[in-house]
Amino acid sequence: MDKEITLYTNPWSRGAIAHWMLEEVGVPYRIEVLDYKGQMKTPQYLAINPMGKVPAIVHGNRVVTETAAICAYLADAFPEAGLAPPPAERAAYYRWLFFGAGPMETALSLSACDFEPTPEQQMQMGFGTKARVLDTLADALRDRRHIAGDRFSAADVYVGSFVGWSMQFGTIDKRPEFVAYWDGLKDRPAHRRVEEQTERMAPPPVAQETSQG
Amino acid sequence: MDKEITLYTNPWSRGAIAHWMLEEVGVPYRIEVLDYKGQMKTPQYLAINPMGKVPAIVHGNRVVTETAAICAYLADAFPEAGLAPPPAERAAYYRWLFFGAGPMETALSLSACDFEPTPEQQMQMGFGTKARVLDTLADALRDRRHIAGDRFSAADVYVGSFVGWSMQFGTIDKRPEFVAYWDGLKDRPAHRRVEEQTERMAPPPVAQETSQG
Ligand SMILES: N[C@@H](CCC(=O)N[C@@H](CS)C(=O)NCC(=O)O)C(=O)O
Ligand SMILES: N[C@@H](CCC(=O)N[C@@H](CS)C(=O)NCC(=O)O)C(=O)O
Repeated sequence: MDKEITLYTNPWSRGAIAHWMLEEVGVPYRIEVLDYKGQMKTPQYLAINPMGKVPAIVHGNRVVTETAAICAYLADAFPEAGLAPPPAERAAYYRWLFFGAGPMETALSLSACDFEPTPEQQMQMGFGTKARVLDTLADALRDRRHIAGDRFSAADVYVGSFVGWSMQFGTIDKRPEFVAYWDGLKDRPAHRRVEEQTERMAPPPVAQETSQG
Repeated sequence: MDKEITLYTNPWSRGAIAHWMLEEVGVPYRIEVLDYKGQMKTPQYLAINPMGKVPAIVHGNRVVTETAAICAYLADAFPEAGLAPPPAERAAYYRWLFFGAGPMETALSLSACDFEPTPEQQMQMGFGTKARVLDTLADALRDRRHIAGDRFSAADVYVGSFVGWSMQFGTIDKRPEFVAYWDGLKDRPAHRRVEEQTERMAPPPVAQETSQG
């Protein structure tokens, strides 16, 4: 596993989550910053991610897209970093990683779009309602430092980033469970390094829903 | 790993995906059928899944919710079934499992709700547009039997189920890539057994978007 890793990203995008994960893993990588309209839509980049979105990583000849997949992949590719439980003990790990990438992500993005499903649609849409998603998450975080088990894991990188950003941009309320969780994560040295690097790349966006990326 | 497994489900729901996965794994399990309004909303079941949704599995004292998480969990809990690549080789596996549980699921559910994001919202929502999601998926499936690598995996159970159901219910077009993919999956003995068992539980819903569950 000494092949080069490239992270395709844009400052203040979901790419910062993959970036944080790379810093937690502690292996060398290089960053390619792409702008949204031009560089993410070139044939070269679409060959990496046909969705025309960041983040993506290329590791040797492997491509991983989808932020949560990048977190899960890196945890498994570099087991010495201890960022995933052993394969036989992944009930909570997968549960919350997929809850994050599915219902949580959808509920938060859609609430920024002012879309509210009808009661019948709530039964069919995986997230149900934003209120139910946030109650479920707050329950899972109550009196716990980490979302999956007793240790920091890739699931915290993913879920924690959304919790932190969403409070910052006002898309979720500062419930005590969310504040305590994020307070326990945000000063990790790997996260601080990413913040500093991101600030050097571009000034932080103004706090308003549409800047959430 | 000889603890009992219980699957909480409802016929013709996403529970059928978890059910298929259990049949592929080939371990004993029991099924609890819950109705949507009453039994999924009891305090007992909400203690298992606070989202009030199926599927969920309980394996010994472990709970897994989120259909894709159940697929990933079972593949790792029962490695002898060979339904996940080794941890170091999971780039495509996680990529497409999370693509399925995130952008694909969201695009398909939302298109049944007649919600179309504006161009600015497309940049922020993880799925972008349904057209882009389906093009990405068709590209990934072209000339391939399996979504991740050369072997059947838990990612096929999850992604394949959505492809099959969505064609059946008319939420996606019968593109040749989708038809060929589903044709290669649907006659797997484990899938056929689940279909038979599901039909015994309840007659199939009428093909219309709102029955997709
Ligand atoms: N489901 C994807 C979503 C990625 C995504 O939407 N990225 C945004 C930035 S946060 C993007 O690249 N938008 C550009 C565009 O859609 O044109 C993931 O989880 O990685
Ligand atoms: N994100 C969940 C979605 C589960 C879901 O929405 N299940 C539907 C049936 S397909 C349900 O139980 N609906 C009942 C309700 O929301 O009241 C998953 O992937 O498992």
